[in-house]
Amino acid sequence: MKFKFRKLNLIFAIQIFEIMPKISQRAKHMPASPVRKLVPFALQAKQKGTKVYHLNIGQPDIETPQTALDAIKNIDLKVLEYALSEGNLDYRKALTTYYNTLGFEDITPDNFIVTNGGSEALNFAISTLCDDGDEVIIPEPYYANYNGFTSTFNVNVVAIPSSIDSGFALPPMEEFEKKITDKTKAIIICNPGNPTGYLYTKEELQQLADIALKHDIVVISDEVYREYVYDGKQQISMLSFPELSENCIIIDSESKRYSMCGVRIGCMITRSKKIHDAAMLFAQARLSPVLLGQIAAAAAHVNDEAYIRGVREEYTKRRNLLVDLLNEIPGVICPKPKGAFYCVAELPVDDTEEFAQWLLESYSNNGETIMVAPAGGFYSDPELGKKQVRIAYVLKSEDLKRSAEILRDALKVYNDR
Amino acid sequence: MKFKFRKLNLIFAIQIFEIMPKISQRAKHMPASPVRKLVPFALQAKQKGTKVYHLNIGQPDIETPQTALDAIKNIDLKVLEYALSEGNLDYRKALTTYYNTLGFEDITPDNFIVTNGGSEALNFAISTLCDDGDEVIIPEPYYANYNGFTSTFNVNVVAIPSSIDSGFALPPMEEFEKKITDKTKAIIICNPGNPTGYLYTKEELQQLADIALKHDIVVISDEVYREYVYDGKQQISMLSFPELSENCIIIDSESKRYSMCGVRIGCMITRSKKIHDAAMLFAQARLSPVLLGQIAAAAAHVNDEAYIRGVREEYTKRRNLLVDLLNEIPGVICPKPKGAFYCVAELPVDDTEEFAQWLLESYSNNGETIMVAPAGGFYSDPELGKKQVRIAYVLKSEDLKRSAEILRDALKVYNDR
Repeated sequence: MKFKFRKLNLIFAIQIFEIMPKISQRAKHMPASPVRKLVPFALQAKQKGTKVYHLNIGQPDIETPQTALDAIKNIDLKVLEYALSEGNLDYRKALTTYYNTLGFEDITPDNFIVTNGGSEALNFAISTLCDDGDEVIIPEPYYANYNGFTSTFNVNVVAIPSSIDSGFALPPMEEFEKKITDKTKAIIICNPGNPTGYLYTKEELQQLADIALKHDIVVISDEVYREYVYDGKQQISMLSFPELSENCIIIDSESKRYSMCGVRIGCMITRSKKIHDAAMLFAQARLSPVLLGQIAAAAAHVNDEAYIRGVREEYTKRRNLLVDLLNEIPGVICPKPKGAFYCVAELPVDDTEEFAQWLLESYSNNGETIMVAPAGGFYSDPELGKKQVRIAYVLKSEDLKRSAEILRDALKVYNDR
Repeated sequence: MKFKFRKLNLIFAIQIFEIMPKISQRAKHMPASPVRKLVPFALQAKQKGTKVYHLNIGQPDIETPQTALDAIKNIDLKVLEYALSEGNLDYRKALTTYYNTLGFEDITPDNFIVTNGGSEALNFAISTLCDDGDEVIIPEPYYANYNGFTSTFNVNVVAIPSSIDSGFALPPMEEFEKKITDKTKAIIICNPGNPTGYLYTKEELQQLADIALKHDIVVISDEVYREYVYDGKQQISMLSFPELSENCIIIDSESKRYSMCGVRIGCMITRSKKIHDAAMLFAQARLSPVLLGQIAAAAAHVNDEAYIRGVREEYTKRRNLLVDLLNEIPGVICPKPKGAFYCVAELPVDDTEEFAQWLLESYSNNGETIMVAPAGGFYSDPELGKKQVRIAYVLKSEDLKRSAEILRDALKVYNDR
């Protein structure tokens, strides 16, 4: 079966690309999203009438804040105009207040470029710093779309493995030192981490700050899950290191914070005027970020303490439930994440990509199945994640409970075939 | 003054980039948007209390259709979720109906990728077709942001001049033949044209189709102004050439059609499954186009005939008024555009970039001035457009009338200094 699967993949690749001279090498090297490439199998399962629990994607079922929904319902505009390329001032003021409240009192509206989701902020950061053949260092496993954004610009990811055994802690600095070359332009971290849920300590971040300064490279810190850390812990932003003023870009997004992934509002923040001004050229080329999303997001920020606290409590409950249930399944190992809403679990199967496809194509339990994200796509070398999956705990508790039950049964059926 | 101006530009460039090793070559080569780079001077003028008529940007003052505004006001969603990477089916069905009605009955929802504005569609088209150092041929003057999108991917624009004397008609095919090399991946046209307002004839488009097929390159046809052509004429889409099924990408957007530039909804359309599938990899990397914009745009398409007809009549009126007034000003030459809502006018000045800046910095007429887009940025060699400006006729008639009056006076004052 394994051979057949790989062969089919190869035929698929040839069909798409090899007989077609017009497609760029850039496109040929673009990785398919590991989260989204199983979607056709999920659609087929649904067409057969199977209910699919989506553990594969970070789309929370949490409600968007009513303040944001109301702001949209009450828009009093006759023309839905372009926003400023850098984002409208009202929204950048809302962001400024938020960052000032986080303790970064020097941050002003001029530090932000509002983007179409955190995705575009990453895109701007990479294109601003990197040329073809340049390198970015990323501890792995890492958010799979970092591969997409780097591939778009022919930038190479140099990955440094972190281990499931240490809960995916930051690898030692010696490993970074070994990999830094003239071509290294940035280190990308996600804190708290997608897919690992790992929360970097102050000491780890200080090490990163030191090494970035030593080699005059930039830390790109993706902090979109900042508000969702658990057990009374607090996320430490890379903005806490003033010595990085010229060497740091923060990636932020409202998508996860306010469960409004569809409004496509994120931002990049930097204290470096030079980086900001260069990134603005890319922002101007695409004219404008979304107007309505800025209105929704600005409203969401107003008096959001209770909302954020409630969502954090809900995720804590879901995490505790899910991780305990997963670790009770024979052969499953799942470190307890400290933040975000994902965990990486090792499963007792040879290849989670085959398993994930099988779950959708060939398995159902009382008409239900689960969709998981094979973790191979979260590693530079998919082999390293071949036994792992990323599971998002964005569904309500009873759905997570039922999903764990399905996983337990499915693993048994799969391994008994 | 000229010397000083250039020198200041140079110092500015050095300040941003040269002392900063961390910025990519890609960013250093990004052109500043000619439409947006005067924005700081406009802000200063406004701060001094001067009223600025914006002739510089294609932001219509036309109202967004009430159907679209109502769809937003009446959203009945609790969670503003991710859309599908290719766009939600409801909206792609609305687009399908629209394209079927245009006469392209083979078009299905699978031919579309919904994008964050036409900008992102162009971005996907170029990244799908072109690698570093590849070339795209564009008749000039052309939409300035084509420079931005190509620079982002280190793709070179090979421009073929069209002339103000022929109203910017398609240059002869011999000129294209001379420029096509192994590196040529696409020809980009904008029809009707931004900035020229030129509407390509069936014969011109057939020539483009023939040459594209002969050399197996792709025609990227930017048709976002399709609905706004005048004098009873009709735009001919590049989709009318079925022989280009593997060699054509259409760029479309709802921004101009429905005066809702801020919703950021566009799409790319191709009959080529191979191009579509490759572009989808870039679409997946950025996860999702805007949800709310798709809802607004789908609603806008419903029974839009009266709206489109009304707007077309309004633009016809504005065009007739403005072009006549411009041609009455001594030394001004302005061909009558057949579509879109821009015209390119030649002014009796040496350098329209200096003049445009002077209009904002040093001139006012009863407390009012105008902002125009210097046409240099719409040419590969800015020298070619040095005496020209692009003027958008998106303001209501009395504002256009007053703007022409201001321009007439300003040219006199400027040339009498």
